[in-house]
Amino acid sequence: MNLDNVYKNLTIANNTKLALVVFDGVGDIATASTNWQTPLEVAKTPNLDKLARQSAMGRMIPVAHAITPGSGPGHLSLFGYDPLEVEVGRGVIEALGVGIDLQAGDVAARANFCTLDANGIVTDRRAGRIDTSICEAQCAILAKAIKKIGDVDVLIKAGKGHRFVVVFRGTGLEGPLTNTDPGREGMPIAAATGPAKTAKVVAEFQKLALPLLKDCKPANGFLLRGIAHQPKIETFEERYGLKAACIAVYPMYKGLAQLVGMTKIEGAHSLQEEMEMAVEALKTYDYVFVHVKPTDAAGEDGNFAAKVAAIEEGDAALGTLMAAKPDVLVITGDHSTPVPVKGHSWHPQPVMITGEIAGWDGLERFTERAANLGSLGVFEAKYLIRYMQANAKRLDKFGA
Amino acid sequence: MNLDNVYKNLTIANNTKLALVVFDGVGDIATASTNWQTPLEVAKTPNLDKLARQSAMGRMIPVAHAITPGSGPGHLSLFGYDPLEVEVGRGVIEALGVGIDLQAGDVAARANFCTLDANGIVTDRRAGRIDTSICEAQCAILAKAIKKIGDVDVLIKAGKGHRFVVVFRGTGLEGPLTNTDPGREGMPIAAATGPAKTAKVVAEFQKLALPLLKDCKPANGFLLRGIAHQPKIETFEERYGLKAACIAVYPMYKGLAQLVGMTKIEGAHSLQEEMEMAVEALKTYDYVFVHVKPTDAAGEDGNFAAKVAAIEEGDAALGTLMAAKPDVLVITGDHSTPVPVKGHSWHPQPVMITGEIAGWDGLERFTERAANLGSLGVFEAKYLIRYMQANAKRLDKFGA
Repeated sequence: MNLDNVYKNLTIANNTKLALVVFDGVGDIATASTNWQTPLEVAKTPNLDKLARQSAMGRMIPVAHAITPGSGPGHLSLFGYDPLEVEVGRGVIEALGVGIDLQAGDVAARANFCTLDANGIVTDRRAGRIDTSICEAQCAILAKAIKKIGDVDVLIKAGKGHRFVVVFRGTGLEGPLTNTDPGREGMPIAAATGPAKTAKVVAEFQKLALPLLKDCKPANGFLLRGIAHQPKIETFEERYGLKAACIAVYPMYKGLAQLVGMTKIEGAHSLQEEMEMAVEALKTYDYVFVHVKPTDAAGEDGNFAAKVAAIEEGDAALGTLMAAKPDVLVITGDHSTPVPVKGHSWHPQPVMITGEIAGWDGLERFTERAANLGSLGVFEAKYLIRYMQANAKRLDKFGA
Repeated sequence: MNLDNVYKNLTIANNTKLALVVFDGVGDIATASTNWQTPLEVAKTPNLDKLARQSAMGRMIPVAHAITPGSGPGHLSLFGYDPLEVEVGRGVIEALGVGIDLQAGDVAARANFCTLDANGIVTDRRAGRIDTSICEAQCAILAKAIKKIGDVDVLIKAGKGHRFVVVFRGTGLEGPLTNTDPGREGMPIAAATGPAKTAKVVAEFQKLALPLLKDCKPANGFLLRGIAHQPKIETFEERYGLKAACIAVYPMYKGLAQLVGMTKIEGAHSLQEEMEMAVEALKTYDYVFVHVKPTDAAGEDGNFAAKVAAIEEGDAALGTLMAAKPDVLVITGDHSTPVPVKGHSWHPQPVMITGEIAGWDGLERFTERAANLGSLGVFEAKYLIRYMQANAKRLDKFGA
């Protein structure tokens, strides 16, 4: 029996409100370099402590044992989609990251400005890592000149440094296509191969765009990678019967939420504002996803003190959401970003489920080592949404 | 490699004795309403404590993450069958519940007495929830008049209130069939559709039975639901090489055990008698399943004190079985029935395995929160039988 179908057949509707707060990359590790403590252990977290004393805890594996996830798989998993089944191409993730409102069927490509010699040979795949301002200026040139290729709309948006994104929007497009990036210097730009219409559009785009850059220095060319179309994904509402909203500051997380059909609620500039908007959203929506970014950024920087501060800031803001008493409140990360790793990692992230019938595991604080002792054990993150449904009494009994 | 086959190839025979004691619905949760304690924590359990100090513990997921099981899936899982693979229809469970000795191939239906108007329209699907005594009297009328339809035997047995069970026994029958229950009032009785011979027999049964009720008030009709046949299931002995017996007071649990080929041993009226009969059965059988009902009933009632008392009563009776020193003794539930939930739930039930080589996890008591710290972790209940086999040295080494 297909387990997704089993869950779907058991799904029932009611008026409960569910909230998922993702402290991005919050999980950490205790090593000699951190004095054998983690930021969650060192941070002063009165609100998280209060939740801990009435919650069930555990740790979650975002993708599979020992796999370090990117933000895409990390979040898809929290939203209940198997990241090994639902593949979202890199171009799509990148487009979401720069804030493009992707539509079903759009084909998106990551692009790098590069340097070409007189014979069209790539001499620097990153064009000396040009400034973002130069990238933006050159993207503006391209965007102004190329708005359409046949019946296909072309959207161009600058990212950071030498990076930008190209989106092709029109009927009959699909990915994936091979990269035009030859992968190393000393080679010419490759042709993108794949579904015929899309390959033709990409080739035409290069033919139109490259001449526009010929006098630019050092970025007189560009390479496309991860050319993919937005996959058709069963929406959050179809899958769980939950009308869902997303509150995030960074575009990529809003994009990932939109990918599964959540409504993005714009305008928050701080964690406090995010929590206030979450409280407001819970009046209209069944489920609210709130994304807290600073924990991940501090982990990426390997900055222990900054991660402690980010957790404390998040904890303080959390009080606003707690006061609204959602029926089910989950605090977790999308993965760990340990300070000693300075990047994402596979270490299972701690998770805490609060609700009227979550049960208390007897743990006093929300930390990695407390979560090890919780009733939820170590489980795959894609099941989190099922525990949220169950705690909200939105899953019926299986069998007599 | 199919895991079931791996286990089967590793299975070896010896003279060990295995006992599974199921405190039905024993798992619970600590919430504000229970003063943050569970019945297992509050109960005085000298025998369970004694076992705890020589056992391995963990928690088990009956069906899948966050799924609340009925008694059928809960027990099938404890017996080592995947409840998502082995589906037992509602009619079959209901027939087992009223104590009908089902045979392979029998088709069973849940039935409700209902009220029909002069035009045969259902005006009350439960006939005003008539008394059990009326139900019994009307079932007697039907049973007396309809014993056979062609070559098919018909068995009719009253349940509680307006509920009864009809079983069709003969060659060539199979389920499932659609309900004759239209699902709401204001509609006529529907035809049961499905495998031809069975559908014909069901239609004939209605044709014969309905006129017999025409003067009954208010229950002048009946509706059939969950019409299903007893599935063919590999027996416990075929699967594990264990000759198994079941000791339970309530018919449904005996029925579920019989479904997998256990011999039911009748006659127990109390937990103490059940344990005495288990000791006796272990002389003849390799494996004994003992079902303890009162814990579940107390949980369903949301009665904390009653659940504590039920645990204490079970604990006291357990001494008799412990004195017989089965080689492997397991104490667990088929699921949790938390007092704050007043019903079954998905919370993993605690499990404790005692045996010469089970190993002690250093835990002093058998409680949910102790079990969180056990060496078995949180695992799917269908693997419990494998741990029992292993502890009984009935599973050989895999590979060299």
